[in-house]
Amino acid sequence: VIAGAGFGGLTCARGLKKAPVDVLLVDRNNYHLFTPLLYQVASAVLDPGEIARPVRQLIRPLHNADFLLANITGADLEKRELLTDHGPLSYDYLVLASGSQSDYFGNASLAKHAFGLKELDEGLALRNRILMRFEEARWTDDRELRRMLLTFAVVGGGPTGVEMAGALAELTHLVLSKDYRDLDLGLVRVVLLEAAGALLGTFAEPLREAGRRSLEKKGVEVLLKAKVADVTASSIRLADGHEIPASTVIWTAGVRASEVGSAMGLPLGRQARIQVLPTLQLTGHPEVFVIGDLAGATDGGASLPMLIPVAMQEGRHVAATIKYVLRGYGATNFQYKDPGIMATIGRNSAVAQLGPVRLTGFLGWLMWLGVHLVNVISFRSRLVVLVNWAWDYLFFDRPIRLIVRAADDEK
Amino acid sequence: VIAGAGFGGLTCARGLKKAPVDVLLVDRNNYHLFTPLLYQVASAVLDPGEIARPVRQLIRPLHNADFLLANITGADLEKRELLTDHGPLSYDYLVLASGSQSDYFGNASLAKHAFGLKELDEGLALRNRILMRFEEARWTDDRELRRMLLTFAVVGGGPTGVEMAGALAELTHLVLSKDYRDLDLGLVRVVLLEAAGALLGTFAEPLREAGRRSLEKKGVEVLLKAKVADVTASSIRLADGHEIPASTVIWTAGVRASEVGSAMGLPLGRQARIQVLPTLQLTGHPEVFVIGDLAGATDGGASLPMLIPVAMQEGRHVAATIKYVLRGYGATNFQYKDPGIMATIGRNSAVAQLGPVRLTGFLGWLMWLGVHLVNVISFRSRLVVLVNWAWDYLFFDRPIRLIVRAADDEK
Repeated sequence: VIAGAGFGGLTCARGLKKAPVDVLLVDRNNYHLFTPLLYQVASAVLDPGEIARPVRQLIRPLHNADFLLANITGADLEKRELLTDHGPLSYDYLVLASGSQSDYFGNASLAKHAFGLKELDEGLALRNRILMRFEEARWTDDRELRRMLLTFAVVGGGPTGVEMAGALAELTHLVLSKDYRDLDLGLVRVVLLEAAGALLGTFAEPLREAGRRSLEKKGVEVLLKAKVADVTASSIRLADGHEIPASTVIWTAGVRASEVGSAMGLPLGRQARIQVLPTLQLTGHPEVFVIGDLAGATDGGASLPMLIPVAMQEGRHVAATIKYVLRGYGATNFQYKDPGIMATIGRNSAVAQLGPVRLTGFLGWLMWLGVHLVNVISFRSRLVVLVNWAWDYLFFDRPIRLIVRAADDEK
Repeated sequence: VIAGAGFGGLTCARGLKKAPVDVLLVDRNNYHLFTPLLYQVASAVLDPGEIARPVRQLIRPLHNADFLLANITGADLEKRELLTDHGPLSYDYLVLASGSQSDYFGNASLAKHAFGLKELDEGLALRNRILMRFEEARWTDDRELRRMLLTFAVVGGGPTGVEMAGALAELTHLVLSKDYRDLDLGLVRVVLLEAAGALLGTFAEPLREAGRRSLEKKGVEVLLKAKVADVTASSIRLADGHEIPASTVIWTAGVRASEVGSAMGLPLGRQARIQVLPTLQLTGHPEVFVIGDLAGATDGGASLPMLIPVAMQEGRHVAATIKYVLRGYGATNFQYKDPGIMATIGRNSAVAQLGPVRLTGFLGWLMWLGVHLVNVISFRSRLVVLVNWAWDYLFFDRPIRLIVRAADDEK
């Protein structure tokens, strides 16, 4: 049983394709989400169908795999059962891969008013909110009120925050400027707040600087050493007392592992990640593995970052381990091979750090585009995404700026 | 001021492009919906971005037109103000074009449990429901329960009901059969219930028969003279006492005009449509026009049907009338030119009645495809829809079977 159909869980299932096992994937969503592009759903560039794909469709080529939709609530390690809101599921081997969630560090005002950007439903809610604020701004002549409605504060200067802020600035200046001809778009503010002294802290120094300059060129106000104390429906207050009128706050500054570890009473490390052996097994339970954001795996003492390559490599390692164990061999230690990191800043700029290679600006963006096109394109119907992206990147305009919520389906 | 950005309102705005007037469109959604394909959103063939387009984008070529998002609550004819939840809007000329809604004829059980199919949020809710029922069916071994979960009852044998039932049958047999290999899809029932003695009552007799045969060939159970008395969360009961265990009921059998007519206390005709003069003006208020589903316009005594061509021709007529009146001429009577009617039954069959020409089966479907491709394709980015449709019609499979709701954006 694999609990979670993200990059870790899905890669593990694929790795078990030819193993003499039955694989059952369980997830609370019926889809696998290509999270690196979630900010493009939020900024109305891509539709959900372009960054998510039904798990059942993805596992069709795996003849030993099946899927069940359920919320994972825990596991009974003695009975060897995964616990879900639909009942328990027995396992011989269990792979916990239920990922991570936004962490508001116990700040209730943040949890109430800020938008997370981890899930597809959050991306859609954020899109609706952003477009709604522009519509509401049209109904008032009060400049202060308009400015508050049109101020978007992104908290967290990591790749997600940087990408979201860049996309928001471009949405405003390239697209919405045509839709709202009568609105003074000089009133729009995109503010990126970072508690540390630099953006993109995991990148090398020159890349951090390049990222900041690139964002500022696109019109994003970057505030460093800005720690958020409190958020209301109309403002964001910093720890130094400074207050910014803003009616939309996006939170990308904190992430913690999903609840399953604490629900099971397991020993947790930093960011509530489950402590694992170097083999990714639970101490005392060699039949239970933990991978991805949920796992507190280390590499030479340091925690591995919550990144897709980590999750995929761990998924592959666990699949291999299960195959070894079935043949009577022992489990081997996991070793991470770092393929590099990158972050895009709008349509024509990115920073990429791939071992000794460091790219910025347009070259970095070509690298980003290449990597993501290859991934997205093997990920779903080739032609459509290619046409959509080309259309959008050439004309800055795909007609998906729809404010739409699904009606209640629990009738 | 044009209240409503559907086919009537939008066509009217376009007709006023070169008139010496300022046009303000008002709608509660920020998009125009291509309603003929809403059933394809519900059956997971198309995404919202493919059948809806932002009003602001559509009116970009109209340099005298603007848009405001608001719920229309009524109008003060003496003060010449359209009333909305954001405040009143003054007008010189008013075009009421706020369309129609599902009518459950006061049956509270229907309103509570049945899904309407008029709005984009309803289409998405229905898609989520249908996919959810298949997932839930996987969690039970009780055959009766599974059958109930997998029974979909479509009420109403008009074009919408026929198209929805056909699409549901194909979704099950062509697509979901691959996703749910372990589920006995023989348990799936798609039941189409019609109170009258034939489907497609507005079509000629041979076409009605052809439509029914075509549906039955695709596996739809057609029940004629079946009047719905009562719906619960797990069954649908007919007036003759017959009961069908079904956990999803789709209601396409009743439509009435939007509330604005009754909110204004205007004299209403059949289906709560506002009574209008042959010029489409309100009696005593030559500056107020009513068009589309909201208008009870007649043609030789008979009410005009609630169809897109009626709304578009009325919108065009009112735009022309306003231009005449501005030049000092009088209003002329509206005359409807019937372009014909058609309904599709799945991917390769349709019935079409265009004056003396009557087509069924594959020929009818080619006609339907031609008409809709031309309309959709002038309607949004050409290549994408073409690729999507070709992909889907060839491979019966686009990866948009996502169960996804937007999270709350009123934070």
